[in-house]
Amino acid sequence: MSETKKTNIILFSGDYDKAMAAYIIANGAAAYDHEVTIFHTFWGLNALRKDGHVAVKKNFMEKMFGKMMPRGADKMGLSKMNYAGFGPKMIKDVMKKHNAMPLPDLIEMAQEQEVNLVACTMTMDLLGLRKEELLEDIEYAGVAAYLGEAEDGNVNLFI
Amino acid sequence: MSETKKTNIILFSGDYDKAMAAYIIANGAAAYDHEVTIFHTFWGLNALRKDGHVAVKKNFMEKMFGKMMPRGADKMGLSKMNYAGFGPKMIKDVMKKHNAMPLPDLIEMAQEQEVNLVACTMTMDLLGLRKEELLEDIEYAGVAAYLGEAEDGNVNLFI
Amino acid sequence: MSETKKTNIILFSGDYDKAMAAYIIANGAAAYDHEVTIFHTFWGLNALRKDGHVAVKKNFMEKMFGKMMPRGADKMGLSKMNYAGFGPKMIKDVMKKHNAMPLPDLIEMAQEQEVNLVACTMTMDLLGLRKEELLEDIEYAGVAAYLGEAEDGNVNLFI
Repeated sequence: MSETKKTNIILFSGDYDKAMAAYIIANGAAAYDHEVTIFHTFWGLNALRKDGHVAVKKNFMEKMFGKMMPRGADKMGLSKMNYAGFGPKMIKDVMKKHNAMPLPDLIEMAQEQEVNLVACTMTMDLLGLRKEELLEDIEYAGVAAYLGEAEDGNVNLFI
Repeated sequence: MSETKKTNIILFSGDYDKAMAAYIIANGAAAYDHEVTIFHTFWGLNALRKDGHVAVKKNFMEKMFGKMMPRGADKMGLSKMNYAGFGPKMIKDVMKKHNAMPLPDLIEMAQEQEVNLVACTMTMDLLGLRKEELLEDIEYAGVAAYLGEAEDGNVNLFI
Repeated sequence: MSETKKTNIILFSGDYDKAMAAYIIANGAAAYDHEVTIFHTFWGLNALRKDGHVAVKKNFMEKMFGKMMPRGADKMGLSKMNYAGFGPKMIKDVMKKHNAMPLPDLIEMAQEQEVNLVACTMTMDLLGLRKEELLEDIEYAGVAAYLGEAEDGNVNLFI
């Protein structure tokens, strides 16, 4: 009897290239009928931010974090060779030439493939991120929910 | 028949935020009755350093590494937005406001919950770290011991 | 009946220390008769580059990436304390003193132990790397092949 395989990815990193790797693996696993969850925590939450400004009440520290962190997947930097934003432009140009999907499209595809996109509520609180600032149709959970999935996972990764 | 689940984390990173993630997952897993091991290697060993100076004999290189690396969990920097130490202060302020546990408390809690804290002896040698410089009640082992645990692990992560 | 255990490592990082960790785990697992695969993607591909210049036709962007990325394992930087190349020198000096294997030797040992070294073709394309520039006797595959291995893996790590 064949069981559904499970892939669970913690996306901790806020780097464009690492988030790409996470979403490529997630989309691949979903295509192979895995049940896939990406649990976004710390800087990885930025991949789920809407790209425009969202008016929400924040205290001083929360505003600072909000301003310093990238608004959405398209604005994230690279883990290597970032060169003040030049690296991401190079990568995106090259991806375009190779018809590779940019990160926002990879995220959209993941949602279409029913990958569970989860935002870690504890780190949302720390960084002052509100639900209104994040994409629609995502879930909210904590470490307990992650562990519940991961303990039966076939592929567990921390990215 | 239910078996004990196992969570094994390699903590390679010396960043405050990544170590927090490792210890939050570890404490969560211990609360769910997993058998949990954090295997500290390379810069992750700094999370286990005592915060004061410990008098031990070292050669020149070992002294240099000793001085350049943070003495203990509380002195570690952030993986992102470190801003010469300003980032960690922001995060710690915010954590205090949310009553979130700072890293040294998370480590203490892990010890109380009997999470196995292991220091990698090979990288201790490389970085010139002595047992006297690390916390009490931790274990010392190499890659073989890690693999012995990890091959039966339910959740294996490299952080 | 005992089955062969499987260890699958994604090496995403182009840092000398992280690649060392990956290869030490891989060589350890191979010594314990695991079937071991290291799947090199993004900056991790640089660990597989030959150290000399290889004459291949490239467009402008590919040439730029080629020049900016390190040519082979020995030229990679550290994830921490890189100090414009001084950190790697320190680590290599210390390793020599402790008779620890440098990264190029760890890679050679992995090949002797029949660890499967795989280069991710999609990211090779993005970064403009050609098969002629990479080590002999490695394999070429994509995310599907990785998932095929990883879903039956005992130890899956993203480094």
